[in-house]
Amino acid sequence: HIFGSAYCAARYLRQALPPGAAAYVLGSPALAAELEAVGVPHLGPGPAALPGPTPADWAQAPLDPAVRAVLVGFDEHFSYAKLCQALRYLMRGGPDCLLVGTNRDNRLPLEGGTAIPGTGCLVKAVETAAQREAFIIGKPNRYMFDCVVSEFNIDPARTIMVGDRLDTDILMGNSCGLTTLLTLTGVSTLDEVKGHQESNCPTRQSLVPDYYVDSIADLLPALGD
Amino acid sequence: HIFGSAYCAARYLRQALPPGAAAYVLGSPALAAELEAVGVPHLGPGPAALPGPTPADWAQAPLDPAVRAVLVGFDEHFSYAKLCQALRYLMRGGPDCLLVGTNRDNRLPLEGGTAIPGTGCLVKAVETAAQREAFIIGKPNRYMFDCVVSEFNIDPARTIMVGDRLDTDILMGNSCGLTTLLTLTGVSTLDEVKGHQESNCPTRQSLVPDYYVDSIADLLPALGD
Repeated sequence: HIFGSAYCAARYLRQALPPGAAAYVLGSPALAAELEAVGVPHLGPGPAALPGPTPADWAQAPLDPAVRAVLVGFDEHFSYAKLCQALRYLMRGGPDCLLVGTNRDNRLPLEGGTAIPGTGCLVKAVETAAQREAFIIGKPNRYMFDCVVSEFNIDPARTIMVGDRLDTDILMGNSCGLTTLLTLTGVSTLDEVKGHQESNCPTRQSLVPDYYVDSIADLLPALGD
Repeated sequence: HIFGSAYCAARYLRQALPPGAAAYVLGSPALAAELEAVGVPHLGPGPAALPGPTPADWAQAPLDPAVRAVLVGFDEHFSYAKLCQALRYLMRGGPDCLLVGTNRDNRLPLEGGTAIPGTGCLVKAVETAAQREAFIIGKPNRYMFDCVVSEFNIDPARTIMVGDRLDTDILMGNSCGLTTLLTLTGVSTLDEVKGHQESNCPTRQSLVPDYYVDSIADLLPALGD
């Protein structure tokens, strides 16, 4: 079973939106497909052009009356035109228009040490325009874990969170009351763990895992028992 | 004499960049014209498309070897493609590549109570990708005032800052040691002033003007003397 942030975002909107309400989506066709699968009407994916040459045109483009949420995911077609439309839905709906982000990743690392901007950049742009914070589906928030719990009979005290990032995986595990295990094959290092551990800062202490392994492969013998 | 943030941004880059170094600009043709006027080579204004269908293509698009700064202004053609290219220049140059924003306005108000996203949204997106803060040219930063001082013989103790926003105009005036005067015809209200004044917070106290007038017209008799 795999719970991704796109699936959980769709699930969240289905629960949080009134029947028939739609979402304006800054995101991929895959995110739109998750909304479709749970029956949330949506618009937005794909390229968008500004509806005219002047700011007055941009502020008067038609709005879909059914939209009651703005969902921000990874969107290679993100543009000023879309940011503008998102702000207009958020201003029209006020606090009744939901603002949801799939995650706050600032970069997506690629092979060879390069990286491309992550969803977090787009979420920040919309949050800055809207002057409010988005509800974030992904780690370190606990919503994805709550999704898992609601579908499976899980006892947090008997559950271990395995991950390679202190600021997402381990933080979420700790805040959900799980045992946490860091693998050193990914983003975070043992030096970072020690820095957090030796600090007197409660925020940093919440990033310290209970255990670590060099590689996930080290777990295999234990899992075999 | 009018000192705008576009002019001051161009002036800043001319001073801060080594000779021949170029700027990658997220901004308008007007911002590019200011760079041209002071002799800073630049590229970027106008629409940009992603250079291929996959993230690997985006991370391998050609970079101009002369670029040593990313300048973020108001850009109606802002897009994921441009954000991606900005991040690549910033990653290639490291701390040697300047990151400059013209201002942090989150919205530009239009007539009729509507608004469009401001430059601050775009600056935040680039800052989130770059994992560093931009140097901001406009208020409340003091750089624009320093530009004025460097061209005119100004004594801050004999200078008054007049403006309609506490968090930009008045804050800049106070931090530059000017006398400050709020006009109540614009964004900020007297209730906000009272809130800041009655707080025990030094940050909020720095937003309190020395004087206020209902309208800038109330100043005219005094200016006539």
